[in-house]
Amino acid sequence: MTPAIRFEVLAQDPASRARAGLLHTPHGTIATPALLPVGTQASVKALGPDDLRALGVQCVMVNSYHLSLRPGADLIAQLGGLHAFMGWSGPVMTDSGGFQVFSLGRGPAERVSKVGPLVPGANRPSGGGLVRIDEEGVSFVSHLDGSHRRLTPEGAVATQEALGADLFMVLDECTSLLDDEAYTALALARTNRWAERSLYARTRSDQGMFAIVQGGPFRPLREASAHFVASLPVEGYAIGGSLGPTREDMLRVLAWTVPQLPEDRPRHLLGIGTPADILPAVAAGIDLMDCAAPTRMARNGSLLVPGGRLNLKGAAHRADPAPVEEGCPCLCCQNFSRAYLSHLFRAREMLAARLASLHNLSFTLRLVERLRRAILEGSLGKLIADQVSG
Amino acid sequence: MTPAIRFEVLAQDPASRARAGLLHTPHGTIATPALLPVGTQASVKALGPDDLRALGVQCVMVNSYHLSLRPGADLIAQLGGLHAFMGWSGPVMTDSGGFQVFSLGRGPAERVSKVGPLVPGANRPSGGGLVRIDEEGVSFVSHLDGSHRRLTPEGAVATQEALGADLFMVLDECTSLLDDEAYTALALARTNRWAERSLYARTRSDQGMFAIVQGGPFRPLREASAHFVASLPVEGYAIGGSLGPTREDMLRVLAWTVPQLPEDRPRHLLGIGTPADILPAVAAGIDLMDCAAPTRMARNGSLLVPGGRLNLKGAAHRADPAPVEEGCPCLCCQNFSRAYLSHLFRAREMLAARLASLHNLSFTLRLVERLRRAILEGSLGKLIADQVSG
Repeated sequence: MTPAIRFEVLAQDPASRARAGLLHTPHGTIATPALLPVGTQASVKALGPDDLRALGVQCVMVNSYHLSLRPGADLIAQLGGLHAFMGWSGPVMTDSGGFQVFSLGRGPAERVSKVGPLVPGANRPSGGGLVRIDEEGVSFVSHLDGSHRRLTPEGAVATQEALGADLFMVLDECTSLLDDEAYTALALARTNRWAERSLYARTRSDQGMFAIVQGGPFRPLREASAHFVASLPVEGYAIGGSLGPTREDMLRVLAWTVPQLPEDRPRHLLGIGTPADILPAVAAGIDLMDCAAPTRMARNGSLLVPGGRLNLKGAAHRADPAPVEEGCPCLCCQNFSRAYLSHLFRAREMLAARLASLHNLSFTLRLVERLRRAILEGSLGKLIADQVSG
Repeated sequence: MTPAIRFEVLAQDPASRARAGLLHTPHGTIATPALLPVGTQASVKALGPDDLRALGVQCVMVNSYHLSLRPGADLIAQLGGLHAFMGWSGPVMTDSGGFQVFSLGRGPAERVSKVGPLVPGANRPSGGGLVRIDEEGVSFVSHLDGSHRRLTPEGAVATQEALGADLFMVLDECTSLLDDEAYTALALARTNRWAERSLYARTRSDQGMFAIVQGGPFRPLREASAHFVASLPVEGYAIGGSLGPTREDMLRVLAWTVPQLPEDRPRHLLGIGTPADILPAVAAGIDLMDCAAPTRMARNGSLLVPGGRLNLKGAAHRADPAPVEEGCPCLCCQNFSRAYLSHLFRAREMLAARLASLHNLSFTLRLVERLRRAILEGSLGKLIADQVSG
């Protein structure tokens, strides 16, 4: 029997770890590398599934933390699962909710973040006032209604099986950049035990489970984590947690971990995907990324263009007849001027968010698609060289 | 030479004043009766032109008051006119801005409204603190930046010629239900002089100008007004101003005025178009209506269904797997459950407004389309009888 989740590597770039592949899922095949827009609450903000299809979105990342609080995973299961619920027939990935839970109650300095300010000397146990962690799982207070909730590895699997995504994440403990190596090692050991428990908790064979590499910014921990997850019979691997404050830190973590991961399974980089991150991550061997930044920037009036961003909330483009990006095939650039988009933002019209989100996703997806073509054609090195010299 | 704006009556209902026709404009033909969604600021809130096309919207009503303040009619002209600006290649109608200007600075009791509370004995000259009217025009204070502005009949024509809509309205003085007959008569005489000045101010022959019937709730004034506008060489007529507090009052005004208007030109009822108003207005001989209510209700979570409305902001439909309206062809009903829409509203997702607006417009447009078919098939009387008995 063909497994429900299959990954094929079609081409390997000779000069980097970049590769192009196909990830087959029950709801369709994802051509990799691929960027997954984030639909936290079962909706990619301001966009409909029709918009996502028009953009060529291949897979959507949805958050099981938010959905389990509202409207509830059982309700979504009863309504036919996430695909039916959100009117999206393509592949869906869910996140375990760990990142959201471990972010609760954190101040800006101690937040659980991908990249963020490193405060030297700080050393806090994971979990702010709203979160309590123990060997069995995490207790937390809902950000919606203050109710007391419990998340365990088994519960996270059950929730994500109920939601019915094609690809899902095991529950992991997300440490902060403020956690020292000793605490991060403790947390990692627990995360590994949770991954094993997650394997035992599975009851469905038509979903792909991703185990997560943790270990903070510490090389020995990251290497040990990658080595451990590589031993698990899972369909994919994700790299999560605190990567360090800069892009260089992120690339260092990828260089420590990616080589440890089996070639024949997809590698997902959690929560990363701004234009500047995409090329280095792909070159480091990443197949899948999810990122809310392109649509969040769009809602703030920040539009991606080659070489930077345009601010369409101000008056600078009030009379600008050009499209946001010349040659962009998106609905926004094909039909509207910067002047119209600027008008919509200043007039606080909701259409602004939709058009800007369409463009920023189009921009980001086309970048990933260009990288994929270059890998397939063996021209990624040239593309990188052009990028650096340009 | 064929005139740019032509109206053909295709069928006349034998038992009412209802008729079905075709209104030819430079940007396409409008099958009448027709309902125009309102895109106040050059955007039908939460919807794109692609959505409007999918719904079969024939013509959009846009507000020249809002656009002349922001971003400015000259800028829109410089960008190719309203059609190019808003990416809508079909017919567009603009309102003169009179209604908005005369509404400025009014409290709820003295507001200029279509239907509203009648306060007996009250008698205020038109214009609140932010508006000053004289024979030449109106001075007012912008609601956006407090700047002093001036609107004249000639200025309203020039603005609407610059915007380039297919159909536009002369500037009229909108009286309030608090204005007595004497004041309303004065205002009407001025409105008539303004209509004549508007005719002289025209420089384009590719737009249809609509003269407006005013006269408040007073029969002699409404009749005189209809008689006057019927004598003007305009492409259409609109019925505006205060119709009275109830639907019966509105129908009385229509019964006084519609018979006075030439059969061979279209009649527009300004600002009316909720489902309960549509059938009586069409039966009274109205060809065109514009109304912001279906999309405003949608944004408030109030969804139109046969016989009433569903409130999707509350928890009542939290687990309801049915579409908003069984058999509705709109994107919302074809793809999503009430449960999903209810989730989107409760999670404050922007997609809620788009999906709900799509449905409410679909519902309203299908109602108008049913009436049109019935008129063409000679079955309107039966449809009305079924409605009354049902």
